[in-house]
Amino acid sequence: MDMAIQADYPAELNQCFGCGQLNPHGHRLKSYWRGDEVVASFVPEPFHMAAPGFVYGGLIASLIDCHGTGTAAAFARRATGRERASLPPIRFVTASLKVDFLRPTPLGPPLELRARARGPAKRRAIVDVELSVNGVVRARGEVVAVQLPRSMLGQARLSFEP
Amino acid sequence: MDMAIQADYPAELNQCFGCGQLNPHGHRLKSYWRGDEVVASFVPEPFHMAAPGFVYGGLIASLIDCHGTGTAAAFARRATGRERASLPPIRFVTASLKVDFLRPTPLGPPLELRARARGPAKRRAIVDVELSVNGVVRARGEVVAVQLPRSMLGQARLSFEP
Repeated sequence: MDMAIQADYPAELNQCFGCGQLNPHGHRLKSYWRGDEVVASFVPEPFHMAAPGFVYGGLIASLIDCHGTGTAAAFARRATGRERASLPPIRFVTASLKVDFLRPTPLGPPLELRARARGPAKRRAIVDVELSVNGVVRARGEVVAVQLPRSMLGQARLSFEP
Repeated sequence: MDMAIQADYPAELNQCFGCGQLNPHGHRLKSYWRGDEVVASFVPEPFHMAAPGFVYGGLIASLIDCHGTGTAAAFARRATGRERASLPPIRFVTASLKVDFLRPTPLGPPLELRARARGPAKRRAIVDVELSVNGVVRARGEVVAVQLPRSMLGQARLSFEP
């Protein structure tokens, strides 16, 4: 099995509720290269509902957001040929998020995400994301991702999980 | 204290993870009329982080989404002069969500939301939402909300909490 894109985030920047692998309360989304795309799969909890039987839109938006920043990091890393888990970190945050909810998303099966960043970009990327269930696209997202600003880094000394 | 907008949702449509008052696992967002605007306040949990010290963007998007649909329902109800807790339900879902993250959102203080729907609209509304912390706007959202489609209503017999 591949390593998740998020496994390359420094520990101090791997705390996000959506995709931080070290946030015990969060979704711990894992995104992987699959050819020229980055994919992820997430099984919602029964309580992640909108109306009964359908997935809560906020979860869909959150997953598109985090999968988008992960995809931006993956594309930036591939474009620059950087080693995994190297410093300075390649860690994107979202400047703008757009989600079109195309049709209701049934609650139960895995939510399948696939994404591409438009062109290699180091500090900024536009990422197109699709979310499908049972092979049908349910939502489409566009994430404008930018490298984590220094103001959000604070005084953190960055390190990687052993 | 006013009744929350969401208190007017029928019980079967009051289960949403973001704003359903009957979802014990969810955020149970409460939105209120304040003059010509609809406002809400939400205190994030310490684990709702992006980078340490900052609020997770997925939570911001989720709150804007749910506050937007609540605002759409409130404006539609006011425009039509309908009684509270009357049937058929006035219950909107999101067709499209756009969030601009203008600056980092510090984690700790309440997230303050305010919103207006553009013009009275019964079946569709565009809602402008601002999210502030400490009096500074951190994110701006646009929610295209539509009346809950019949396909999401299923066979539910609607009722209201006693």
